[in-house]
Amino acid sequence: MNADRPAVTVLGLGSMGSALAAALLDRGHPTTVWNRSAHKAEVLVGKGASPAGTAGEAVAASPLVVACVLDYDVLRAVLDPVAGSLAGRTLVNLTSGSPEQARETAEWARSHGAGYLDGAIMTTPPGVGSPEMMFLYSGPEPVFETWRPTLAALGDPLHLGGDPGMASLYDAALLGLMWATLTGWLHGTALVGAEGTEATAFTPIAVRWLTAVAGFMTTYASQVDAGRYPGDDATVDVQIAAIDHLLHAAGARGLDNALPELLKDAMVRARAAGHGRDSYASVIEVLRNPSPGA
Amino acid sequence: MNADRPAVTVLGLGSMGSALAAALLDRGHPTTVWNRSAHKAEVLVGKGASPAGTAGEAVAASPLVVACVLDYDVLRAVLDPVAGSLAGRTLVNLTSGSPEQARETAEWARSHGAGYLDGAIMTTPPGVGSPEMMFLYSGPEPVFETWRPTLAALGDPLHLGGDPGMASLYDAALLGLMWATLTGWLHGTALVGAEGTEATAFTPIAVRWLTAVAGFMTTYASQVDAGRYPGDDATVDVQIAAIDHLLHAAGARGLDNALPELLKDAMVRARAAGHGRDSYASVIEVLRNPSPGA
Ligand SMILES: NC(=O)c1ccc[n+]([C@@H]2O[C@H](COP(=O)([O-])OP(=O)(O)OC[C@H]3O[C@@H](n4cnc5c(N)ncnc54)[C@H](OP(=O)(O)O)[C@@H]3O)[C@@H](O)[C@H]2O)c1
Ligand SMILES: NC(=O)c1ccc[n+]([C@@H]2O[C@H](COP(=O)([O-])OP(=O)(O)OC[C@H]3O[C@@H](n4cnc5c(N)ncnc54)[C@H](OP(=O)(O)O)[C@@H]3O)[C@@H](O)[C@H]2O)c1
Repeated sequence: MNADRPAVTVLGLGSMGSALAAALLDRGHPTTVWNRSAHKAEVLVGKGASPAGTAGEAVAASPLVVACVLDYDVLRAVLDPVAGSLAGRTLVNLTSGSPEQARETAEWARSHGAGYLDGAIMTTPPGVGSPEMMFLYSGPEPVFETWRPTLAALGDPLHLGGDPGMASLYDAALLGLMWATLTGWLHGTALVGAEGTEATAFTPIAVRWLTAVAGFMTTYASQVDAGRYPGDDATVDVQIAAIDHLLHAAGARGLDNALPELLKDAMVRARAAGHGRDSYASVIEVLRNPSPGA
Repeated sequence: MNADRPAVTVLGLGSMGSALAAALLDRGHPTTVWNRSAHKAEVLVGKGASPAGTAGEAVAASPLVVACVLDYDVLRAVLDPVAGSLAGRTLVNLTSGSPEQARETAEWARSHGAGYLDGAIMTTPPGVGSPEMMFLYSGPEPVFETWRPTLAALGDPLHLGGDPGMASLYDAALLGLMWATLTGWLHGTALVGAEGTEATAFTPIAVRWLTAVAGFMTTYASQVDAGRYPGDDATVDVQIAAIDHLLHAAGARGLDNALPELLKDAMVRARAAGHGRDSYASVIEVLRNPSPGA
């Protein structure tokens, strides 16, 4: 065994687990794989992976065990029977879940003498292995530092601190940003599409615009931390005037306006809370304080 | 007068009009300015602008007239009395409004013998003059080509075709994307903030994540045009499972969940329409077909 390329076990060979194992094999890690439905190992065995007959054999094969199954219930169903074999090994859990589930699982791993990192994969399977893609980890710093070079085979590993719940918390926050962005983009795509513009014509402009929006986020992040939102670029009042153009244009073209209506409602509540002349960053106050009816 | 740097008139010296005039002066264009409240011209006159006593004098001073006032009612209130002076000149209207207002104003300008471009400014005043920032224009191609070098003083000019309504339509679509993105980001910022993470720590990761999201948009744009949404990266079913983690984590921390609830509702409607195993791009079908209750 090459000290540079430690052996790794991958538990779970769904679309994501298979991509993780393939990336480890690409980087030359001796890789043991296991999946409930054994046939999913075949392609990976063809690439040089060692198939394990049971989850216990898989865990015993490597100092690092990467798990990526459907959810935490499945994770515990797979690992509970083989918990004894985890002692002295490190479990990196890339299964999606809540911060609370991550913290519980960290405690469970500790009680069995295993190191533990919780992780979140910020890409889809085709992005695995690319150094541009972020993999978020949380858990003890020394455990992260030990395994960082190995984890770099999967994507760019970022450490969010010792609390094992942070990777899941960031994951939820970032996915929320993704769904909001994708839905806003699809609404805009439907709007220009109603006048015959193709999605592939609109989207490069939308992508470029996101760079400007990212600039606003960077400006507004400091305002959020300061708790002061000077509206010297554009005020909530100005945004409220502008969103009426969107509501009107999209309504006239028969689109579902639930999203822009909700966004306008948040702005109107920010204005009612005294932020009319503040920047859009002040809308965070509304999100932190649900309206009584909500 | 320098043929390379034609004279330009700017009507309206609010925060945006002032930034436009300053960018023209920076590039060496002889610039005439006019504003209802004359004192707002002072700073620009200090930079070399010529103040006009009336809107009519301002229009008469230059072959290109850039207007940027509050809204179309103001635009017509300013221009109607001086319409006679517009013949043979070009009016570039950067006032925000609806596609219908843009088309009407194009017709009005044509009836007075003026060239017309409608425009949308995809930045805030501090971004004016930067070649990275997009200025969208629509209206006759030859008019755009004639004035493109001059308009480049303001930002990167993009032409969206002959229909003068397109700049406003794109503007609405892109602003909708901005509000959705900013609100999703603020929700995520509030979520990680509830566990002590600063906005300035979360935001660089959110900005980097937007690059990955832009990659999904690019992939999904082709799916939208094809009307087929293969879920080979991540399916609507998988997203629905994941958004429950966000709803739970944010709800437990007392945040307003109206936005993620709306996003989940759109996904659930996409699933009900048969798109559970399709990609997120299929949500556009729901946005195009409002639910009966909406
Ligand atoms: N796909 C993505 O883009 C993406 C991105 C980020 C994070 N993730 C996360 O990665 C994890 C896996 O996702 P995926 O896309 O790989 O899903 P998937 O293709 O549906 O794979 C699910 C995996 O869980 C296993 N499994 C399910 N029920 C089981 C049980 N009762 N006992 C044992 N194994 C069981 C499956 O085994 P069988 O093959 O035997 O059914 C399979 O290995 C999820 O938590 C997901 O949220 C996915
Ligand atoms: N600020 C931005 O970030 C931004 C970005 C993109 C697009 N825009 C658009 O640019 C346009 C101007 O925005 P702004 O930020 O410059 O707004 P602003 O600072 O409020 O300026 C408004 C302008 O309209 C004039 N005006 C208002 N009512 C008038 C009336 N009855 N008669 C004559 N003039 C009148 C004002 O003149 P007085 O000075 O005499 O009041 C001033 O010149 C708007 O359509 C806006 O949507 C702005």
